[in-house]
Amino acid sequence: MPDFAPTLFSTKVAAGRRTYFFDVKNAKNDKPFLKITQSEINGEEKKKSYLNIFDSEITDFSGALAQTVEYINQNAK
Amino acid sequence: MPDFAPTLFSTKVAAGRRTYFFDVKNAKNDKPFLKITQSEINGEEKKKSYLNIFDSEITDFSGALAQTVEYINQNAK
Repeated sequence: MPDFAPTLFSTKVAAGRRTYFFDVKNAKNDKPFLKITQSEINGEEKKKSYLNIFDSEITDFSGALAQTVEYINQNAK
Repeated sequence: MPDFAPTLFSTKVAAGRRTYFFDVKNAKNDKPFLKITQSEINGEEKKKSYLNIFDSEITDFSGALAQTVEYINQNAK
């Protein structure tokens, strides 16, 4: 097994100084997980931060995001 | 103006050792942004990581997540 699991699916969102990468890989238990990377350029500096969302959490995670986006669209704009 | 902008909306997803917090606040330009925090407990250690998603990016961000979840549900399970 290689050190790094191969990427099964990948998409990204470029937004000004920030880019978000969505990568699906297989975890050690052979279940998929999603790694979201935020890459931010600040002058000369490149800052990355990561979230890992595992298979069993992804439905709840995307539900919470949908609820939040709905709030923003309805109330905060 | 206080040091920390008040939270306008908040929800969370608890999943085993990890909790994801979704907080909406107003940015300096008075537009809402979403802060996603992943808090992970690893033995005695608590590790946090953050993503900030601004107003203008949130539709693309949630679209990319939806696309990724669809991939996982169709192919990787």
